[in-house]
Amino acid sequence: MTSWLDIKDSQFGLEALPYATFRTTANPTPRLGVRIGDLVLDVAASAEDLAAVCAGGLDGLLAAGPEAWAQVRAEVTRLLSDPTCEAEVRPHLVPLEEADLLLPFTVADYVDFYASEHHASNVGKMFRPDSEPLTPNWKHLPIGYHGRSGTVVVSGTDIVRPTGLRKTPDGIVDGPSIRLDIEAELGFVVGVGSEQGTPVPLTEAADHIFGITLLNDWSARDIQAWEYVPLGPFLGKSFATSISPWVLPLAALDAARVSPPERDVPLTGYLDDSALDPWGLDLALEVRLNGTLVAEPPYAAMYWTAPQMLAHMTANGASLRVGDLFASGTISGPEPGQRGSFLELSWSGAEPFKLDDGSVRTFLEDGDEVTITATAPAAGGGRIALGEVSGQILPARERP
Amino acid sequence: MTSWLDIKDSQFGLEALPYATFRTTANPTPRLGVRIGDLVLDVAASAEDLAAVCAGGLDGLLAAGPEAWAQVRAEVTRLLSDPTCEAEVRPHLVPLEEADLLLPFTVADYVDFYASEHHASNVGKMFRPDSEPLTPNWKHLPIGYHGRSGTVVVSGTDIVRPTGLRKTPDGIVDGPSIRLDIEAELGFVVGVGSEQGTPVPLTEAADHIFGITLLNDWSARDIQAWEYVPLGPFLGKSFATSISPWVLPLAALDAARVSPPERDVPLTGYLDDSALDPWGLDLALEVRLNGTLVAEPPYAAMYWTAPQMLAHMTANGASLRVGDLFASGTISGPEPGQRGSFLELSWSGAEPFKLDDGSVRTFLEDGDEVTITATAPAAGGGRIALGEVSGQILPARERP
Repeated sequence: MTSWLDIKDSQFGLEALPYATFRTTANPTPRLGVRIGDLVLDVAASAEDLAAVCAGGLDGLLAAGPEAWAQVRAEVTRLLSDPTCEAEVRPHLVPLEEADLLLPFTVADYVDFYASEHHASNVGKMFRPDSEPLTPNWKHLPIGYHGRSGTVVVSGTDIVRPTGLRKTPDGIVDGPSIRLDIEAELGFVVGVGSEQGTPVPLTEAADHIFGITLLNDWSARDIQAWEYVPLGPFLGKSFATSISPWVLPLAALDAARVSPPERDVPLTGYLDDSALDPWGLDLALEVRLNGTLVAEPPYAAMYWTAPQMLAHMTANGASLRVGDLFASGTISGPEPGQRGSFLELSWSGAEPFKLDDGSVRTFLEDGDEVTITATAPAAGGGRIALGEVSGQILPARERP
Repeated sequence: MTSWLDIKDSQFGLEALPYATFRTTANPTPRLGVRIGDLVLDVAASAEDLAAVCAGGLDGLLAAGPEAWAQVRAEVTRLLSDPTCEAEVRPHLVPLEEADLLLPFTVADYVDFYASEHHASNVGKMFRPDSEPLTPNWKHLPIGYHGRSGTVVVSGTDIVRPTGLRKTPDGIVDGPSIRLDIEAELGFVVGVGSEQGTPVPLTEAADHIFGITLLNDWSARDIQAWEYVPLGPFLGKSFATSISPWVLPLAALDAARVSPPERDVPLTGYLDDSALDPWGLDLALEVRLNGTLVAEPPYAAMYWTAPQMLAHMTANGASLRVGDLFASGTISGPEPGQRGSFLELSWSGAEPFKLDDGSVRTFLEDGDEVTITATAPAAGGGRIALGEVSGQILPARERP
């Protein structure tokens, strides 16, 4: 299928169609948009029958459920491909630079997993050199924890360097983090909720998960290291988590589905996906620091899949709500250039890496800007883009 | 001050006045209520000028800020004490048994702390018998982590026994938790939010914290033990957290303020409360299992105060939102009868305790009902009640 728009070379063609919540100077009401090329389609304005589910932005569509998701995607595809729609639709295409892209949905609970074996192994080797790299539970269940949903921000939001307590050779010091890091991750957006007391099985994941978004889980490694025993990461993470304004629906990912890596520990029933269609995703991420490509994490290397994370998150009867966000944890592949955190890229600061301007980095400096992008195989060949998540580091503020 | 109502013997007199969000069969719209004796005052119905901040329940009042909090409390006090108001107010007093008490506010982020030295020491002694009972960071900062806000439920909600993975001598088993526990805690309810990037200092705590509520952080110790290294508790906690329908405003706690225990490690600036009015709270909790009083945890023994928890939670620039809930962690005193969890009361199962019906317990059995109540010193003598949080255990469900 082709569009009447001239977007042949764009990775935001009819196969992608990610959603955003946007507003414009001319119309400051937040509403649902779909990206096509470098334009944003104002969905409700171009299709009256979709206005109800599009009001207010993506929140309404998330809650509307899989049938509505399919219907809206089909209708948007028709509007953008049927030449007889052009005259009607053109006035509702907003140039990207005129669209103010907002946090795409209201985040309910935010859970962060730890689903990359390579990342977890690297962290284990650095922090627990005398033990096995993976904790004994790691291959039995997808380890996760709750993050702070109130500090999830949209791409482009500046990140103030966090201040906090860390352990130094001279004692415990309160000051700006000196090991400020990124985590390149994939976020999964829950549309349909579930009932408290009733787990969601692997087979029902697609009834609940609407789509994916790129996510950067900013991390202050020094604050985290001092605080995290025994209850896990807290202030080392909770100052900010950035997500892309673009949420790509699962329907766009059919061509990206691949088998996850071989599992070498047998899985308990509710996590055993051996009889299901594969839920690995062949996404290629790129991490840029001030324009230099510093890492190319392959999502296909992730050990745990999204349905496994969802089934685990609800295995104890915990309910889901519209807008729940769960993320993969740092995406790292087996090769050094595939690591999705500076902690790993600089091997805990021991191996600084070089940028194109000749400068070197271990962790983030003030003014640094990080951008994460990704592509996936498209139906019919070629690749589609997921959008991007970026953020710039502002200097720490004095305590009030 | 006395009320024109005959409530002389009630701990829900004019000094208490906790808030709830309630509805009735006759009027199913959720709205703000204030408890007086065994009645619920329909605030908006009895005072037209308060209708705007009371619409929808407690959420509106939380967001309205400290001036509105003082104004509403003063007006409610006047309505219930001025005899000339009786005729006008009486029709808007609902008998407690006719009020359907809802989750009192929309929970934004939920953070659980670990602020009792006695609890943390007991847990350390049981789980890490060869180490110091407290982790090295414990007296430097109030340890906390994020919980699941979507599974916070109101008192009276049944709790389905969670199922999950645990480590046994025969391997890793998926099944109903056999070490299901309570944690008797105090929850703090945030009214006014704060800006991302800007910490909230100790001195501004009362501008943000609206009040307190009793909280039971249900805990599956066996699920928690297998999952929690290295990222902290997840499914061992996330199935349910119960709170009282009653939120007592800080204004009712002036007579309860006491000095916290002596601190034996110097505190960093943002946590140093030595020059402030004391923020310890002399609350007496009672934990009942099927009617038997099993513990009397004293809140005054808590090492970290609410302003310290709030200052820490935002020390990295994390923002607050209306409806944020943060809890103290298990409240345990120095004596065996003052321990706020079954884990401690039964010393990890080694010392079963007896109920009035002759049965014994280590952890919770199906059908067990736990009720936590508390009182505080009242202004002018006597005591006020905080309300209660209760819940009954339903049997585990088969996996779908």
